Amino acid sequence: MDLWFSEQLTDHSRFSIRVKEQLFHGKSDFQTIDIYDTHDFGKVMTIDGKFMVTERDEFIYHDMISHVPLLAHKAPKDVMVIGGGDGGTVREVLKHDSVRSVELCEIDGMVIETARKFFPTLSCGLDDPRTKILVQDGIEYIATRKDAYDVILVDSTDPAGPAEGLFNKAFYQCAFEALKDGGIMVVQSEGPLWRMDTVQEIVETLKSLFPVCELYTFPVPTYPFGYWSFTFASKEYGPFEHFSESRAATIAKTTRYYNPGIHHAAFALPNFLKQKLNPAES
Amino acid sequence: MDLWFSEQLTDHSRFSIRVKEQLFHGKSDFQTIDIYDTHDFGKVMTIDGKFMVTERDEFIYHDMISHVPLLAHKAPKDVMVIGGGDGGTVREVLKHDSVRSVELCEIDGMVIETARKFFPTLSCGLDDPRTKILVQDGIEYIATRKDAYDVILVDSTDPAGPAEGLFNKAFYQCAFEALKDGGIMVVQSEGPLWRMDTVQEIVETLKSLFPVCELYTFPVPTYPFGYWSFTFASKEYGPFEHFSESRAATIAKTTRYYNPGIHHAAFALPNFLKQKLNPAES
Repeated sequence: MDLWFSEQLTDHSRFSIRVKEQLFHGKSDFQTIDIYDTHDFGKVMTIDGKFMVTERDEFIYHDMISHVPLLAHKAPKDVMVIGGGDGGTVREVLKHDSVRSVELCEIDGMVIETARKFFPTLSCGLDDPRTKILVQDGIEYIATRKDAYDVILVDSTDPAGPAEGLFNKAFYQCAFEALKDGGIMVVQSEGPLWRMDTVQEIVETLKSLFPVCELYTFPVPTYPFGYWSFTFASKEYGPFEHFSESRAATIAKTTRYYNPGIHHAAFALPNFLKQKLNPAES
Repeated sequence: MDLWFSEQLTDHSRFSIRVKEQLFHGKSDFQTIDIYDTHDFGKVMTIDGKFMVTERDEFIYHDMISHVPLLAHKAPKDVMVIGGGDGGTVREVLKHDSVRSVELCEIDGMVIETARKFFPTLSCGLDDPRTKILVQDGIEYIATRKDAYDVILVDSTDPAGPAEGLFNKAFYQCAFEALKDGGIMVVQSEGPLWRMDTVQEIVETLKSLFPVCELYTFPVPTYPFGYWSFTFASKEYGPFEHFSESRAATIAKTTRYYNPGIHHAAFALPNFLKQKLNPAES
């Protein structure tokens, strides 16, 4: 059998991996979910034909979405994850001893169910007593929450389909209000070598609301063109003011990507990004 | 016309881009060279079916191979580039005012000829009066040179075919002797998410000869899995001891990737790399 899965990155580029076996195919109310066992990336989940998570490289994305903001916060207690139904982000958040509650608000229950079945190394934190799972629209839910979270992590798909509203100013405004004083939000903000205009738009929208707003980057081989970003948006403090080397070193004993050096290095942007995001300073 | 070029990254993964037009196909004594005009990456050169250089992303690789070692050196005067017949590395080296000579030693004259014809933005430095081009085997040439260079840049293809000898200890020993006191070599050292064992082998071989040896990383979307490395090997000084913020800032006025922040950030390695390269420290 010579079975290949291809993601069309643009009209003119694609990335393909050979599949050992298709393990799942399902259509939820929101999207199409497929799970493959592959040679190079272990088990892989795709949503609407796009790589979502792979066993081989998920550690980078999940380290970077969680440990950067949690270690930039003085003592994060209450955390919300929007999207992220595979559980990888929750797994990392729960490594922080100060955290007493993690709410996971995932619109699509099928993502959670398939992750529980096929990705136990990701979904392992979903049954933790500190975790509360809400299968509902994160945009609607967050609008009901005020002054409730220390950290909000927007672990979303691309800005199309069910995730589109997670990139709007109205949503970011609600998230701002759902954060406590000193709160921090991190949002999945796309690939700088892929959709630079989208990256710029996300950063500019967040800058219009949050006093602190900084992009940071990291590699993800299975995302388009391999270079990805999160945006750090904070009500008061930057990424380093409350950063404690010793707290970070403790977390880094459990990680394969994140460590204190990476915490700092990830915010060093290349010139083409600085020029696009901060033209006045460049 | 629906013409695609695919690079087989492993037996089980491939990256493909749509081609507008094939501009060149040639077989030299050493390898097969193709040049395509593409939608997403502009003009692209492949060697033996592998992406070598593209107009769109070459700036990252060429900034990082050249400015990091040249700015780690107090005042580099004499530079040697082995491989790199496309000219991109020479172009960047020539931006440094202290440089009075650059020797480019490329085994395959066809790489230089096609770069001159199809990649004028890369080959533009080849006619500079400070540049001397040698079409010969870099391994043989370097063995004849002693105490001659401040910086040697090994801008090679993968360790197979004509470049294989550029990854051997015997070659690194000759390079060590060809460097002046305080000299620095940087070698293309493959992709950490692609061929980790090769990365480790290169670093360990260099460590057995050079007192200072450090890996640094950067994204290259058209190289396998998008995350790439160089190894910095130095006879005396590390990457930061002679680093001058103001010299770096001057160079950074001309670059799209490199800047002083990137100089430091590139050496911050993720845990999986630290553990592989320095298991005792991790």
